Amino acid sequence: MDKIPILRMGSYLLVTIQVDLYDRLALNLEADLVQMVQKTSAKGVLIDISAVSIVDSFMGRIIGNIAGMCKILDSETVVVGMQPAVAITLIELGLPLKGVHTALDVEKGMALLKSMIDEDRYDDDDDDEGADDIILK
Amino acid sequence: MDKIPILRMGSYLLVTIQVDLYDRLALNLEADLVQMVQKTSAKGVLIDISAVSIVDSFMGRIIGNIAGMCKILDSETVVVGMQPAVAITLIELGLPLKGVHTALDVEKGMALLKSMIDEDRYDDDDDDEGADDIILK
Repeated sequence: MDKIPILRMGSYLLVTIQVDLYDRLALNLEADLVQMVQKTSAKGVLIDISAVSIVDSFMGRIIGNIAGMCKILDSETVVVGMQPAVAITLIELGLPLKGVHTALDVEKGMALLKSMIDEDRYDDDDDDEGADDIILK
Repeated sequence: MDKIPILRMGSYLLVTIQVDLYDRLALNLEADLVQMVQKTSAKGVLIDISAVSIVDSFMGRIIGNIAGMCKILDSETVVVGMQPAVAITLIELGLPLKGVHTALDVEKGMALLKSMIDEDRYDDDDDDEGADDIILK
C-alpha cells in the first residue's frame, strides 16, 4: 500500500499517519493532499501522528512542507496526537515546526480548526481549550 | 508500529486501516477498540478500509467480529470506503459481511451512524442518502 488515505469530513480533510514516511510515500502524500485540498475546497487539514513513535528530520520537514503548501491554498493544517518522545526529538533536531498548528488530540485539533476558520454553524460547540498552540491569523 | 490508532471524534471512534491486518495486529485492534468503546461510551465506530486493496477471509472475519463485539457493547459499526475489488472478493469468499453496516465514504458513513443513533442535535444535517446498506434496528 503506497498511499495514505485522505478522509474527507465536511470542510476538513483527515490524514492518519500509521507507517514510516519514506521518500516516495511522503511525496505522494504531499501531492495527494494538495490535489485533494484543491478538489474539495477543504478549509482545514488534520494530520494525526499518534501512531508515529520515531521521527527524523525528513518527516519533520515533510510536515512543515505540507502545512506551507496548504496555507498558500488557503487551508489551515493542524498536527494532532504527537507523542512526547516525538516532540522531544523534533526540538533536539532543531525543528520546532514553526507555522504548524498543533493540538493534543483529534477533538481538540478539530475545535482549533473550527475556531480558526470561524464557521458560524459550529459556534455553539466552539471551544479551543487544551489546544497547545494557537497562531493568530 | 504494531498498533492501529483509534481516533475519538465526539461520540464516535474512527479507525483507518492502512496496513495488512496480520494476526497480532488484528487481535490488538479488536481488544483496543472494545476497550475504547467501553472507556469513551462511544455510540458508533467508523472503520475506513479505503486503503485496503487485498482482503482475505481472516480480515473479513475480523471486521465481522469487531462489529459483533461493538454491537453487544451498544455501539454501531459502519465500514466505509470499500474498494470494488474488495467487495467482489468478499462475496466470492462467501463473506457477505452480514450484520455490518457499510457506506461509500466517511461522510456518508457518519451520516448513517448519526441516523442510526438518532441524535437530536444532528437532525438538521441528517441525511443518509448514498448509504449502501441500512439495517433497521
